[in-house]
Amino acid sequence: MVRHLITIDDLTEGEIQAIFRVADEFLKDLADPQVPHRVRGAKSEAQGCILATLFYEASTRTRFSFESAMYRLGGQILSSADPKTTSAAKGETIADTVRVLQNYADVLVIRHPCEGAVRVAADYADVPIINAGDGGHEHPTQTLCDLYTLQREKGTLKDLNVLLWGDLRNGRTVHSLVYGLARFGARIIPMPAEGFGLPEHVVRRLAQDYGCTPLSNDEVSRVRGDKFPVDAVYVTPEKPHQRSLFSDVPEKGSEVLKVRLPANALAKIDACYVTRLQRERLPEGEVGADSYPVIDAAFLKDRRYRSSSVMHPLPRVEELGYDLDNDERAVYFKQAAYGVPVRMALIAALLRIRPDLLGQGPPAKKHQVYTQGTLGCENTRCVTGLSSEQRYLEPRFLIIPESDRLLARCVYCEHDMIPEFVGRLSTRKFEPNRRAFTDIPEDLLLFADEEAALRRGCSPVRQKAGG
Amino acid sequence: MVRHLITIDDLTEGEIQAIFRVADEFLKDLADPQVPHRVRGAKSEAQGCILATLFYEASTRTRFSFESAMYRLGGQILSSADPKTTSAAKGETIADTVRVLQNYADVLVIRHPCEGAVRVAADYADVPIINAGDGGHEHPTQTLCDLYTLQREKGTLKDLNVLLWGDLRNGRTVHSLVYGLARFGARIIPMPAEGFGLPEHVVRRLAQDYGCTPLSNDEVSRVRGDKFPVDAVYVTPEKPHQRSLFSDVPEKGSEVLKVRLPANALAKIDACYVTRLQRERLPEGEVGADSYPVIDAAFLKDRRYRSSSVMHPLPRVEELGYDLDNDERAVYFKQAAYGVPVRMALIAALLRIRPDLLGQGPPAKKHQVYTQGTLGCENTRCVTGLSSEQRYLEPRFLIIPESDRLLARCVYCEHDMIPEFVGRLSTRKFEPNRRAFTDIPEDLLLFADEEAALRRGCSPVRQKAGG
Amino acid sequence: MVRHLITIDDLTEGEIQAIFRVADEFLKDLADPQVPHRVRGAKSEAQGCILATLFYEASTRTRFSFESAMYRLGGQILSSADPKTTSAAKGETIADTVRVLQNYADVLVIRHPCEGAVRVAADYADVPIINAGDGGHEHPTQTLCDLYTLQREKGTLKDLNVLLWGDLRNGRTVHSLVYGLARFGARIIPMPAEGFGLPEHVVRRLAQDYGCTPLSNDEVSRVRGDKFPVDAVYVTPEKPHQRSLFSDVPEKGSEVLKVRLPANALAKIDACYVTRLQRERLPEGEVGADSYPVIDAAFLKDRRYRSSSVMHPLPRVEELGYDLDNDERAVYFKQAAYGVPVRMALIAALLRIRPDLLGQGPPAKKHQVYTQGTLGCENTRCVTGLSSEQRYLEPRFLIIPESDRLLARCVYCEHDMIPEFVGRLSTRKFEPNRRAFTDIPEDLLLFADEEAALRRGCSPVRQKAGG
Repeated sequence: MVRHLITIDDLTEGEIQAIFRVADEFLKDLADPQVPHRVRGAKSEAQGCILATLFYEASTRTRFSFESAMYRLGGQILSSADPKTTSAAKGETIADTVRVLQNYADVLVIRHPCEGAVRVAADYADVPIINAGDGGHEHPTQTLCDLYTLQREKGTLKDLNVLLWGDLRNGRTVHSLVYGLARFGARIIPMPAEGFGLPEHVVRRLAQDYGCTPLSNDEVSRVRGDKFPVDAVYVTPEKPHQRSLFSDVPEKGSEVLKVRLPANALAKIDACYVTRLQRERLPEGEVGADSYPVIDAAFLKDRRYRSSSVMHPLPRVEELGYDLDNDERAVYFKQAAYGVPVRMALIAALLRIRPDLLGQGPPAKKHQVYTQGTLGCENTRCVTGLSSEQRYLEPRFLIIPESDRLLARCVYCEHDMIPEFVGRLSTRKFEPNRRAFTDIPEDLLLFADEEAALRRGCSPVRQKAGG
Repeated sequence: MVRHLITIDDLTEGEIQAIFRVADEFLKDLADPQVPHRVRGAKSEAQGCILATLFYEASTRTRFSFESAMYRLGGQILSSADPKTTSAAKGETIADTVRVLQNYADVLVIRHPCEGAVRVAADYADVPIINAGDGGHEHPTQTLCDLYTLQREKGTLKDLNVLLWGDLRNGRTVHSLVYGLARFGARIIPMPAEGFGLPEHVVRRLAQDYGCTPLSNDEVSRVRGDKFPVDAVYVTPEKPHQRSLFSDVPEKGSEVLKVRLPANALAKIDACYVTRLQRERLPEGEVGADSYPVIDAAFLKDRRYRSSSVMHPLPRVEELGYDLDNDERAVYFKQAAYGVPVRMALIAALLRIRPDLLGQGPPAKKHQVYTQGTLGCENTRCVTGLSSEQRYLEPRFLIIPESDRLLARCVYCEHDMIPEFVGRLSTRKFEPNRRAFTDIPEDLLLFADEEAALRRGCSPVRQKAGG
Repeated sequence: MVRHLITIDDLTEGEIQAIFRVADEFLKDLADPQVPHRVRGAKSEAQGCILATLFYEASTRTRFSFESAMYRLGGQILSSADPKTTSAAKGETIADTVRVLQNYADVLVIRHPCEGAVRVAADYADVPIINAGDGGHEHPTQTLCDLYTLQREKGTLKDLNVLLWGDLRNGRTVHSLVYGLARFGARIIPMPAEGFGLPEHVVRRLAQDYGCTPLSNDEVSRVRGDKFPVDAVYVTPEKPHQRSLFSDVPEKGSEVLKVRLPANALAKIDACYVTRLQRERLPEGEVGADSYPVIDAAFLKDRRYRSSSVMHPLPRVEELGYDLDNDERAVYFKQAAYGVPVRMALIAALLRIRPDLLGQGPPAKKHQVYTQGTLGCENTRCVTGLSSEQRYLEPRFLIIPESDRLLARCVYCEHDMIPEFVGRLSTRKFEPNRRAFTDIPEDLLLFADEEAALRRGCSPVRQKAGG
């Protein structure tokens, strides 16, 4: 069975750790000073295999990282670096493109400006697809590199305190990362620039799927004082029963911890993950934050940062001081270097060159899929909104039950929406989306609004036929 | 002797079949499920060889197809994907570019927006040149894939009924294809969108060089009724003496065949070759056809399409329904997949890795070449019209004798023109181009108009000196 | 120790000759007709190594030449052909880019529009960096090819008369070349289009660093008559004591040689190096020269050109006649072909695949480095003027003592400037830059103008405190 990596949830924790172990092995060869430079890391495991990169958005760094990894494995590469030279310009759909290109390569690496676009590619592919970034959605291989760096620096991912700085709204590396951190039991402390907090659907999923407990804005503002306004603090218990750890344990010198955090939880920051303003994702007219956080040597003088690894997915602009480059806490160039062994291991896993790293199928989805066609994704950057893709692509959602309503999460871009009404196909009745379901009925219908329900030929529950 | 593939006529039928036999062998390796995925098709025949792609027009698909083929043969690739990054932007000529780049690669694959441009490249190259599409002229490797697909699907090319749908005016894949079909004895039934019929010079050449017999418009309109207006139907006899087959043989249920077609000729369509509107080749202001034909499952319900292979050079836009994707008649993705083994075989032939596939020289041209410099090509998209190329490129024509006149066919873009006058260098006389020549005189002169003749110092035949 | 090639001065004459000897060996393999075509030049010396090209300016030719060389050595390539697809578009600095990309490749080839940019890259790299052209500054690998071609054609570089035609102001290939020619003892005779002479700083350095003796404009105008106005003639003695050779030796038929040139010096021209107008480097509004020199067969009929090798870095536009293409003096396509073996040898040297070609460190700089931060480079195309690079890049200069003043030469772009004032940090005094220094004081300060000196807290020498 062909496996893909579209979101970080496409790998189990065990699979991620298996990939990291192989990455360790590759890294050793790449960096071994005993090995003559010209054969460092030269492998022939992927001999005869071709990896194709298909970048509908500009990137040299990520593309080179994949291509270098494939070469180091002994394989070959096909490059499409420029969105304008692809047949998409002639109006070709993603499904067609991937069904053609899979004849030319054994694994496809795709970057696309639309959220969910690479999931569509995977749905039509017979070869492994790797998401190298889809709009503001996810960037799972960056997350693998980030987690790998953290684990090598700290020995573990569990119980780490990780501060996330900057543009958490649009930074897709951040979205993949928080899910990864949560799954491995690290604590996430978001420190966004004003107005650039984690998107609501990401926050909700952190709580629902990974049991993260958010602090209130008031509590949060006490963590960093008034220097940078922050949106929220999330602490991630490894397991649900550990949730008790996070309440009312006082901590010396930190008001915040009086409220929820465990003793000393924020006295020591294990890593600062800094991100640039994603200027290319701002709506037209928006110019960015008034005061974008800048992390530099002066900032890191605070005792709690004494052993913080400073990370950045790069490229940086001005949010990370050059005066940190020779600081031993700065690991961002190492983080970039780890891109090669981690991607080598991932490619080896997906191509089954290392046959035992991945299970037969992807991790099971916990939620039921909804395909009745009564809902469209409301995210304007979702791939389902592209007119070319609407020729063949049906909207699909996961149904997420909450205590008093159902959410619909787009299968492609993973944005949530709250249908205003729910109905049943068998009764042709609909009612407000205001109650819990213990079991989701097979013939459930979801409607964004009343009009949609009426259009489907349904009538409201407990209203007279004459309306 | 170095061989090139610029038009499909650069290969004999025997050479094409030889390439197909090698492609069969490669395809077997590529698709063999017994061979582990990572070594499928891995060859070392082209080890140490470099193929360079030089695409002055955007394409990922065709470029990847060539590059993948070269990798599968064991060779290496150089890519120039973007027209704007070439030295053509600095004003370099095609002749210079190719004379430099042939030092860096062993075979060059060129796509260019100007018709005839790749022939110019071949004229100056010491390494094999492959035309990957030159404007609206030809795309011979696509044709090899098309013919290969047809032959694999149908077992033969002879006597097939092939309908061509869509933009036959600008689709270069179509122009190469009709010559190929004609040579192998298939029947060509053009079904263009209104105003997008085969160019006049293509029609003329089908008749002159390959003995195709056109039906009249009236006759044709009866083939497909009034659903789509069509320009002409051509039927291709395998040999001239078979022409008698095509007259006055009645056919049940088809009025058209009362006139010219053999019994049952159109009762069974072997293949529908669908093409998109070549929007990028429309003159500014032209928007396309009012009713562009759309081939979908409903359309193909007609009994005559029961076993029609549905082909498309891809990318498709809206002219080919997604509801056909799982129809077993749909072979367009297979057609794309065959691009690799066919191009592997072609490269192996041109590089003489498989030394016996191609003869020493190209097939002989039947017509005499005219280089007196009195004519210029009238095709505005011909490479001879580029100011950069005029620094060194002389217009050259083949002289095509018709029953009552001479045509001049541009050696580069292969457009025909009808010189208004013909003359002789020895007599310095000219006369209207209105008679047959049994032998073309050595000192023949051709003139587009009277002014051109007078400019060359010639005077009209049978007129008094005083005019 | 990692070696780079940023300017031609980064290699000693001995190292250049060593590279040429290895290039000879590679050329023999590449061109050997006994070797089957497909394995010509196929090496495995660089197996497992990756060369990355990073071209912030468009080029197919130079990029392919490097990539082909790497393939012929048995290595692999990563390509970034298009400036717009790099992370520079997101605001990344050169230092960051190179620190990331060196993890993905073993040698980086960089072309950049800013002068000095590739030196910055080398300052931050742990892998060898090759300059493939930085603005109008240098293009040292082209110079290696040029010198190699000359040496193969003429057997030596010493005492050759080399005419340089065209745009000597903006042609970076010319700037690298004149230093190379001077070092190997060739005579340089610049023949620029009007207004396109060698930049002043290049002329000055030819005289100061390489002992070239310029002729006056009057003298020069007699060399070529009034056909093309020229700026200057430089003659390069091999050793300083040979300078006496160049004065007052009369020569038959050449007035100019009455003054300075040795007997017959210009009676025989060994090579004409022709260059195109570098249109892309003209300031906005400037359109080029009124009469740009055109070298063609007619021009070369003069007896002195009887055995002149005609060279051109290509691409040509109109300055070099196509009527020379079959002339045996035309070596420009051979010059392009030599790009592969020369670059193979260079890569082998830098990667230490051939371990004994290069010394441990680069040739020592003769001049002292100035880093006091009181001066900025005045060259508007210098990399130090880029706002992105100013985040971390300090201006640095070499101090060049002249008989009556000090010059400051930017370490990056190598433009000279003349500080108006010099001062001392210890005395906080400054004075006009109008005297010779036998030893440069450790605490020297250089000021572009009085304001800069006052801003640094210095006061003028020999003026009363009350001023």
